[in-house]
Amino acid sequence: MEFSSKLLEKAVNEMSQLPGIGKRTALRLVLHLLNQPEEQSIQLANALSQLRTEINFCKSCHNISDTELCEICSNPRRTAEIICVVEDVRDVMAIENTSSFKGLYHVLGGKISPMDGIGPTDLNIQSLVEKVKNGQVKELIFALGSTMEGDTTNFYIYKQIQDYGVETSTIARGISVGNELEYTDEITLGRSIVNRIPFETSLKS
Amino acid sequence: MEFSSKLLEKAVNEMSQLPGIGKRTALRLVLHLLNQPEEQSIQLANALSQLRTEINFCKSCHNISDTELCEICSNPRRTAEIICVVEDVRDVMAIENTSSFKGLYHVLGGKISPMDGIGPTDLNIQSLVEKVKNGQVKELIFALGSTMEGDTTNFYIYKQIQDYGVETSTIARGISVGNELEYTDEITLGRSIVNRIPFETSLKS
Ligand SMILES: [Zn+2]
Ligand SMILES: [Zn+2]
Repeated sequence: MEFSSKLLEKAVNEMSQLPGIGKRTALRLVLHLLNQPEEQSIQLANALSQLRTEINFCKSCHNISDTELCEICSNPRRTAEIICVVEDVRDVMAIENTSSFKGLYHVLGGKISPMDGIGPTDLNIQSLVEKVKNGQVKELIFALGSTMEGDTTNFYIYKQIQDYGVETSTIARGISVGNELEYTDEITLGRSIVNRIPFETSLKS
Repeated sequence: MEFSSKLLEKAVNEMSQLPGIGKRTALRLVLHLLNQPEEQSIQLANALSQLRTEINFCKSCHNISDTELCEICSNPRRTAEIICVVEDVRDVMAIENTSSFKGLYHVLGGKISPMDGIGPTDLNIQSLVEKVKNGQVKELIFALGSTMEGDTTNFYIYKQIQDYGVETSTIARGISVGNELEYTDEITLGRSIVNRIPFETSLKS
């Protein structure tokens, strides 16, 4: 692509770094912004740089949060005895949306994936194991979506904590195999939490 | 959508103002940026705000340009006697890519579309009519893509300049009816410029 302006070229190139946005789409988006009032571009630019530089993660569950301890972790009406282990903030949002869960979350920040070079130490696993060791947790719910990486991650964590007398369950397989959690409809997702099964049972099926 | 962070919510909301980007896609893009080095977000933010605040248009052809007169208008090997009338910078890029055209462009900035509230005075039509009146133009090529709005715009301009003895042509209808110019393949587009037909002839077909 030959651009008539370096400013335009730079904006298109940066925009097309985003996943699923090719050069042509990036150009369309950038030209759209040029047709809108200047504030829209400025506000988008500010929101992106502010998020990236001021981003904060809950010190307990590692979810994205504007406060040191997130609203869920600091809510006295929720029980710290049940912890739902999820991949990222989208899964927290999806499960919260079902209103089916009153425990806390633990956001791993990804799944173990040797293909992508993501090992256990790249994820928030150690702090989860510590919580279990400290004895405050009665049950861990694995809610990672039923992909191979999800299963691997579940099993890795299970091996780390199996000797500490904590119950483990996986959300019921109403979620179709190979599907990501966030694309599951609310009813299926809510039901799969209520009908969760012991993790050992899930290994045999 | 319930967000765990106002910063996250703001970034997602701003991103989802872009055409074709829903809330869910916006969240995916924003979370992707959070997983990348901080520079990527900062560079994207800077490129967008810089483009929008420092954008400049060629004073002659109205194409996006970093200089007062764009590279095409200031190129002595191109002829000012033939002017290709296009909608926006994407069309200039598409035609330049064919290497089939050695004249100059005139970028209207849109098409007449009463449905969208876009009238002739919202477009760069007056400066085109002035160029023709000044007698420097021998031929106008209408290259607006064959949609109803394109035809309306061609005809409006044609009425304004028909008494000044300038030749008018439209690019050959190798471009499928109803199709936008930028989605036409290079060969078709290049050939349609070489095989352009007089505008009056196009009215009868
Ligand atoms: Zn938290
Ligand atoms: Zn120019």
